[in-house]
Amino acid sequence: MKKPGYKIAMLGAGNMAWHLAPALEKAGHEVVLVYSRTLENAQTLAKALKATQSTDKPDFTNSPADLYLVAVKDTALPGLLQQAVFPEGSLVAHTSGTQPLSVFESSPEIRGAVFYPLQTFSKNTPVDFGNIPFCLEATDENAMFLLRKMAGSLSQKVYDVSSQDRKTLHLAAVFACNFTNHLLGISSEILQKRELDFQMLKPLVEATVQKAFSQEPFSVQTGPAVRRDETTIQEHLQLLQHETGYQEIYRLLTQSIQQKS
Amino acid sequence: MKKPGYKIAMLGAGNMAWHLAPALEKAGHEVVLVYSRTLENAQTLAKALKATQSTDKPDFTNSPADLYLVAVKDTALPGLLQQAVFPEGSLVAHTSGTQPLSVFESSPEIRGAVFYPLQTFSKNTPVDFGNIPFCLEATDENAMFLLRKMAGSLSQKVYDVSSQDRKTLHLAAVFACNFTNHLLGISSEILQKRELDFQMLKPLVEATVQKAFSQEPFSVQTGPAVRRDETTIQEHLQLLQHETGYQEIYRLLTQSIQQKS
Repeated sequence: MKKPGYKIAMLGAGNMAWHLAPALEKAGHEVVLVYSRTLENAQTLAKALKATQSTDKPDFTNSPADLYLVAVKDTALPGLLQQAVFPEGSLVAHTSGTQPLSVFESSPEIRGAVFYPLQTFSKNTPVDFGNIPFCLEATDENAMFLLRKMAGSLSQKVYDVSSQDRKTLHLAAVFACNFTNHLLGISSEILQKRELDFQMLKPLVEATVQKAFSQEPFSVQTGPAVRRDETTIQEHLQLLQHETGYQEIYRLLTQSIQQKS
Repeated sequence: MKKPGYKIAMLGAGNMAWHLAPALEKAGHEVVLVYSRTLENAQTLAKALKATQSTDKPDFTNSPADLYLVAVKDTALPGLLQQAVFPEGSLVAHTSGTQPLSVFESSPEIRGAVFYPLQTFSKNTPVDFGNIPFCLEATDENAMFLLRKMAGSLSQKVYDVSSQDRKTLHLAAVFACNFTNHLLGISSEILQKRELDFQMLKPLVEATVQKAFSQEPFSVQTGPAVRRDETTIQEHLQLLQHETGYQEIYRLLTQSIQQKS
């Protein structure tokens, strides 16, 4: 290891762990252990790293680390924290956007923290961490110091974010990402039904996103709703006559756009 | 002019014309005339080109061109077609996503066509036409031949699209772009109220778009709705308690996502 780094135990061997662990190694840290409920998964990830240990037993008493990084599903987090045994006073950070810091309250023997990269991770899609915002939270300054150094070794965008603000960020991400993806799905379905290629819309969607982030999105709204082009709106509702669910979404979003303009 | 190109008269001097005319020149065509209702606008664009003529009189009898390209607002199009005088048999193409080919029916002395680049154009934002889909429509094959050559000199993505399919494309674009922009606006507003930076979401939104276009969007849906995570959904609705309009959008889109999964 060339750079002085931290010793990290990775708890979890899913998408998040598969992206985060190699990036941490590359940034000069040492992943000393991989834990997974399924031993094989722990071993596979450990082999892809320089990690010396892999285990399916959540007893870490003899596995000292500067940071235990918990990258498991939200629903598995409370159960794992209940089962796991850490060396007294260990720093344990979860990587979830939705779980509050208080999830650690029932484990007073450890120092709980949050190390949350605001990104979606898929198998086989490489992630460049350099631009990904890291949202950090901890109660003590020593923990924050370590988290900031570690996040800073991966990304230029490191934020202190409280549990309450993280909730707001998550809500905003539901609108900007989850709901947006659903609208793209509706769009794709509409095109498919007439054997038109959804890929035709890609440059337009990309330009829309770039514009929304370079200016205030409400201020660059285009389309029939904001133009109050009633002829086109009625034509669109007519085209959706056999899709009453999509009609309802079209009406509600058109109305919401007009209220904002 | 190095490459053999077409002689084009540009009718309109707005965003679309400002992007399209220089790109056509660069591709080896000759913009011989710029028309605008406002002479000054026609002159300004003509000066930025090698165009020799500019005018605010829509009489083109003495201005022969291979193609008259009409890049005016949708609402101005029928009026301009009524007023304008073209040499008999001229090829006149509009550049609109919403206007049908039949808009030319009241001008039987010309050959009407559509030359529609599926993109949004803003002042000062350069556009790389190479990847932009061009949607073409005309009734005669000679016209289609010329339009295909011209579009092909700008972009690799050239499609024959009927007026009916163009309507469907436009509807799909309303969902994928106009409505998406509105959701980004809501997201930005939610964050602003807690003094959080909307830019934090940019990498996540970009990744969402990339994923939606590399796979079927409905199949890569994430978030509390598709997970049926009722706790988070209720928490989000609670956070939106003072924004009943956004609550309604949240409920409707959540329901629609759950119906699709």
